[in-house]
Amino acid sequence: MAELVGNCLIGQSGGPTAVVNASVAGAITEALNHECIEEIYGCLNGVLGILNEDFIDLADESQQTIRALRYTPGAALGTCRYKVKKQQDYERILEVFKAHNIRYFFYAGGNDSQDTAARVGELAAEQGYDLRVIGIPKTIDNDLPIIDHCPGYGSVIKYICTTVQEMACDHDAMGQHDLVSILEVMGRSAGWIAAGSSLAKRRDHPHDPPHIILLPEVHFTAEKFLEDVQRVLKREKYCMVVVGEGLIDVDGNYITTSSVSTDAFGHVQLGGVGDYLRGLVEANLGIKARSAKLGISQRVAAHCASKTDMDEAYLAGQAAVLAAVGGETGKMVTLVRGEAEQYSCETGLADLHEVANGVKKLPAEWVNEDGVSMNFQYHRYALPLIQGEVDIPYTHGLPMFAHLDKGRVEKVMGSYET
Amino acid sequence: MAELVGNCLIGQSGGPTAVVNASVAGAITEALNHECIEEIYGCLNGVLGILNEDFIDLADESQQTIRALRYTPGAALGTCRYKVKKQQDYERILEVFKAHNIRYFFYAGGNDSQDTAARVGELAAEQGYDLRVIGIPKTIDNDLPIIDHCPGYGSVIKYICTTVQEMACDHDAMGQHDLVSILEVMGRSAGWIAAGSSLAKRRDHPHDPPHIILLPEVHFTAEKFLEDVQRVLKREKYCMVVVGEGLIDVDGNYITTSSVSTDAFGHVQLGGVGDYLRGLVEANLGIKARSAKLGISQRVAAHCASKTDMDEAYLAGQAAVLAAVGGETGKMVTLVRGEAEQYSCETGLADLHEVANGVKKLPAEWVNEDGVSMNFQYHRYALPLIQGEVDIPYTHGLPMFAHLDKGRVEKVMGSYET
Repeated sequence: MAELVGNCLIGQSGGPTAVVNASVAGAITEALNHECIEEIYGCLNGVLGILNEDFIDLADESQQTIRALRYTPGAALGTCRYKVKKQQDYERILEVFKAHNIRYFFYAGGNDSQDTAARVGELAAEQGYDLRVIGIPKTIDNDLPIIDHCPGYGSVIKYICTTVQEMACDHDAMGQHDLVSILEVMGRSAGWIAAGSSLAKRRDHPHDPPHIILLPEVHFTAEKFLEDVQRVLKREKYCMVVVGEGLIDVDGNYITTSSVSTDAFGHVQLGGVGDYLRGLVEANLGIKARSAKLGISQRVAAHCASKTDMDEAYLAGQAAVLAAVGGETGKMVTLVRGEAEQYSCETGLADLHEVANGVKKLPAEWVNEDGVSMNFQYHRYALPLIQGEVDIPYTHGLPMFAHLDKGRVEKVMGSYET
Repeated sequence: MAELVGNCLIGQSGGPTAVVNASVAGAITEALNHECIEEIYGCLNGVLGILNEDFIDLADESQQTIRALRYTPGAALGTCRYKVKKQQDYERILEVFKAHNIRYFFYAGGNDSQDTAARVGELAAEQGYDLRVIGIPKTIDNDLPIIDHCPGYGSVIKYICTTVQEMACDHDAMGQHDLVSILEVMGRSAGWIAAGSSLAKRRDHPHDPPHIILLPEVHFTAEKFLEDVQRVLKREKYCMVVVGEGLIDVDGNYITTSSVSTDAFGHVQLGGVGDYLRGLVEANLGIKARSAKLGISQRVAAHCASKTDMDEAYLAGQAAVLAAVGGETGKMVTLVRGEAEQYSCETGLADLHEVANGVKKLPAEWVNEDGVSMNFQYHRYALPLIQGEVDIPYTHGLPMFAHLDKGRVEKVMGSYET
């Protein structure tokens, strides 16, 4: 295989996570090892930064900054939810790549982003432009197919479980009985995140919360929910409910008090199911209920990230560069779990086509018959993902996160209307 | 002064915090140093545990457990919001004390709890029963008078600031402009907690969030709020709002979408101001808004506690025992800030009478003229309180909190109807 010499471009897309910057740090660090990669660029705000030719020089950032990227939440290059639809957009992308001699393109994102990456790669092949495109998995939703689990997932559920355990310390302390405490978590179309809260139950502590987990996969009815709450309150002094924001009824309607709006991808923006359940309990059972909604904070809670997750995110970034330099293209890095009892994880590759727009569902057989708790199969799957803590440096009492200088790469093309 | 020999009783009251157990750990550890203190008891669920004679033997707990109490959130002895009103209740308390030879009573709590402690002490004096009563300050609300700041406050604002900084990493990454992000925090009657979020702004980073802080002390009007949001969005790509749950309008009405209920003390239970503001922005400005409500999780976020706060809480517990053994009674331990530029803090004592039911207001002169941000005086006050991180041991990926064995002390009296 002929060595491909040129510049590399790294981009981020979709919702930020606690560890997607670790993937960028891994990719940058690995890219520096390969002479065939000349310049290391980042595109600002994902594909928008390609269309607008907004590139920054990542090799120009200090080593300290790149090291700090590893534990900095968010998406340091900026991200976007812009959906590339027009053929013209893809052609513009390729023109920009050619103008900057981009030969390696690494794109960290979820399903939609991997789809974009796949199409860019295809167009390059059609035009005979030698380009290697490798996707880096990223999503707290844990819903990418093929991959064992997604970077970002372990950290969000570690944070939620920590919060559940701390709230348990609170509720255990309250003298009153019959409190219903509702925690609304993310999860637009799958219950992976809500399911994760079950790890907060310590082994051999059957009274530990959460007592009820409401998953989008299990159709909600008010009757069953209120029965479940009453059943829990017969044996516990409080009932903690963790509910995924995407909870639906048997007709597929979202359970929410809020108005519903949609984003650029047609994804429904939700909120309010926690408040809805709170009202339901108070109105029907006449007992006190409280709700909390962690919102955006849960997906970027780097101060409570999983070291396993962060290390794997970094590894995925490195693996993307190694794969591309090794001649691969049109692939996404995957995480492959070892077969042994003791958890281990290495990277693999999957066709972008197979990943793009596919969805990994929460296995129905991992939900207990009661429909509101997870069984040992889920625990065996998820527990390794939250292991280890990340040591973040603090300054003035707060985490010291990286802030990129973002030295701009000179534009060589005309502007473009997105 | 004659040495007073007998048993001691430790209780917790009011809302749990990240550090009130550290005060209990401090008191237990110090009590072990004094031979005049024979048994070390805890009452379960505050004053309810005295009325019901629900005592546990704290000296029987393992040293490991007491050490772990230091970083365990909640209120390990249990707490209550029972308001002692009847004279009969106070007389019962004293009878129980006499039956168990309780000569030292340490009560960690906020305003209401210190009032209860004061009255118990008075009744003992009236009856010629030698009893030393020392209050230990505790409240995330930071509203106790005389004391420089309250244990629990530094930790809640450290957690909120960390969350604000992480959310900033998220929002900074989003390509879209004109996002309004609303974070609802606790603070029933004062803006101390919401004000604390201003520490998330790094020095010399004027663009850092929060951009708007809504305090109960500054009467809310929708017009000014919407103007403020628009003003922020002219210079920033998103606007982060931190709002205290107790926000009121000029007539003193709470700003909320939720129904209002009251607890046993007549305190109003709030919620929903974040969602209200979100609706206001979307309906009037036609731009996207998101809200999050940390709820209970914020007051018990031990995984992100302030070491300064935790150490001071522990110190307050120790100081309570030292004061009582030294002959003091009817006092609450205070925290006294040193005069020097460099932060230092030692304990003092204040009359329980002066503390009970008093309220420390957020000084109006610490709020900037814009009404939605805090000035350097607040920063100078609060920044030292969030310094230092607490190293919590983890097991299976989650914090390893203390769980008391709660070996019961035998009851010697008849039951009592509360």
